[in-house]
Amino acid sequence: MNDIIFRPIGIIHTSFKESKETPIQPRKSGGAEGTIEIYDEYIPALDDLDGFSHIYLLFHLHLSKGYELKVVPYLDNRKRGLFATRAPRRPNQIGLSIVRLLRIEKNILYIKDVDIVDGTPLLDIKPYVNSFDEQTEIKIGWLKNRIKDNDIHRADSRFDDT
Amino acid sequence: MNDIIFRPIGIIHTSFKESKETPIQPRKSGGAEGTIEIYDEYIPALDDLDGFSHIYLLFHLHLSKGYELKVVPYLDNRKRGLFATRAPRRPNQIGLSIVRLLRIEKNILYIKDVDIVDGTPLLDIKPYVNSFDEQTEIKIGWLKNRIKDNDIHRADSRFDDT
Repeated sequence: MNDIIFRPIGIIHTSFKESKETPIQPRKSGGAEGTIEIYDEYIPALDDLDGFSHIYLLFHLHLSKGYELKVVPYLDNRKRGLFATRAPRRPNQIGLSIVRLLRIEKNILYIKDVDIVDGTPLLDIKPYVNSFDEQTEIKIGWLKNRIKDNDIHRADSRFDDT
Repeated sequence: MNDIIFRPIGIIHTSFKESKETPIQPRKSGGAEGTIEIYDEYIPALDDLDGFSHIYLLFHLHLSKGYELKVVPYLDNRKRGLFATRAPRRPNQIGLSIVRLLRIEKNILYIKDVDIVDGTPLLDIKPYVNSFDEQTEIKIGWLKNRIKDNDIHRADSRFDDT
């Protein structure tokens, strides 16, 4: 019932070959770089994108199978409601990352601050616009005091299927 | 080939009954409020979410059919590459909004700053975390000087199917 069908518009290439050891967030990646190969049919849709320094990537968390409604997230040691976390095993396996766009050459996007596993199917690109996307009066629930600036934090295998 | 299948986790209810006149961004909504009805099976996944003031909603742009690779976006008068815009007609019709979470009662989320059409199927919720999601050294391409603070901006029918 109500199936919604999407198809990749490209593939993300990075140095992270499995979910274990992949950074848990772009800002925790230590500046990791990667590329995105956009399928040829979509090249005209990339026009004007190179004026933006940051882009949202929406992608298929293709290694994630199944999910639990309560999980122990990275940066915590007790179970939290899944939707209060960014854990990759979700009812709909959609990943969201904001990465830095370095340059575009034909159908290849060069990106930085990457927290994505190699071979991940890309679903959409949207420009990051600070006056739309930056928020004020923010509360971050259980994550308060759990995030340290400038550290690098990589995944373990807790969300692997195996 | 490579079909990716998602299913709604709930439905978004707002006062906007068609895409025309719906705000083009949460920050352009004039504080519009709405509710999200989460399907009962996912209620445990909402635990701990009420500690967050802002949430990402990923949803199916269910009224959008088809797409063009170059579009004249809101806030501009010339064609731009689709991926350099937030236009709703896209190869994969995934909408992304950051809304303010007012409160949760059982399976109902009360939200503010809503730019979403009534009846939209919800795909995912992720917490907004400023230290992950706020960016620095930002460039916004063609949108530079086109965004005025505090104005309300609503859609016309340019992206309608009819």
